[in-house]
Amino acid sequence: MPLPRDYERQSCALARALEVVGERWTLLIVRDLFLGVRRFGELQAHLDIPRAVLSARLATLVDQGLVERRPYAPGRDDYVLTERGRELWPVVHQLMQWGERHLVDGGAVRLFSHAACGTGLDAVGTCPACGVTPAPADVETRPGPSASPLRQDAVSRALRAPHRLLTPLG
Amino acid sequence: MPLPRDYERQSCALARALEVVGERWTLLIVRDLFLGVRRFGELQAHLDIPRAVLSARLATLVDQGLVERRPYAPGRDDYVLTERGRELWPVVHQLMQWGERHLVDGGAVRLFSHAACGTGLDAVGTCPACGVTPAPADVETRPGPSASPLRQDAVSRALRAPHRLLTPLG
Repeated sequence: MPLPRDYERQSCALARALEVVGERWTLLIVRDLFLGVRRFGELQAHLDIPRAVLSARLATLVDQGLVERRPYAPGRDDYVLTERGRELWPVVHQLMQWGERHLVDGGAVRLFSHAACGTGLDAVGTCPACGVTPAPADVETRPGPSASPLRQDAVSRALRAPHRLLTPLG
Repeated sequence: MPLPRDYERQSCALARALEVVGERWTLLIVRDLFLGVRRFGELQAHLDIPRAVLSARLATLVDQGLVERRPYAPGRDDYVLTERGRELWPVVHQLMQWGERHLVDGGAVRLFSHAACGTGLDAVGTCPACGVTPAPADVETRPGPSASPLRQDAVSRALRAPHRLLTPLG
């Protein structure tokens, strides 16, 4: 095991899951990968995260099979969610929805809709119009009324337009 | 805000949510409260967590409105999930299911079924027989084939029998 087994006397699968995704910043990195961010420098600028921390978290995600590196130039890699990583979409989405409901005033920071019909997803990620729970590649996101207009990094600017999850930012 | 705003430049609701439930041990404490644990000493024995850490995490959960203290004797409180806390059930359940699928060999550590009909819940927490997504109070849990028979604390022993979520341990 590459990770410290901090919860090793906890046999629960939740403890195992938290060993992989429970470190500081990890779920925010996974969120950005869902949003279509793929480059180290973009992740760093968008997350305001120390380079060494981002590097360590990405290495863990790769080691644990949630993310794969895809070379796009000599010595440079894109970071892309694997199927195992993409299966975290319900967790990321529902934790975000819980935060929107209880911790954010004035409306959603980010909206998610079913790309096929444009209907906003409900709290558990289902499309109320179609009755399906779309996979993340079939979800479109756009800023909500509480989105901050202040950030000027490339990712924040790209995500002001509607964008389909997992599609690379333009 | 009682918490350090470590993600303060992240406007996303996920960052807000992680400020509340993203600290080490917090989701495992919330899991135990879903399982019916209510006493400080039982949480401490079941989680193998330092007393000061457990006390700090519970204080945060109370401050943030996820848990309420209910006195049961002079100077002694039960800890009970509020509605805001109970709304974390899909997150806790799905992260546990993700861990079961990808990180545990040999079958589930813990099983969850719809109490009304006895059918095991699917990966997103829905009852395949009834088509409903039961609230946690309508979910029954029991150990799965990968559960450890080694732990002898009172909570681990009580949870070897089928038990309905949120019902105090006998």
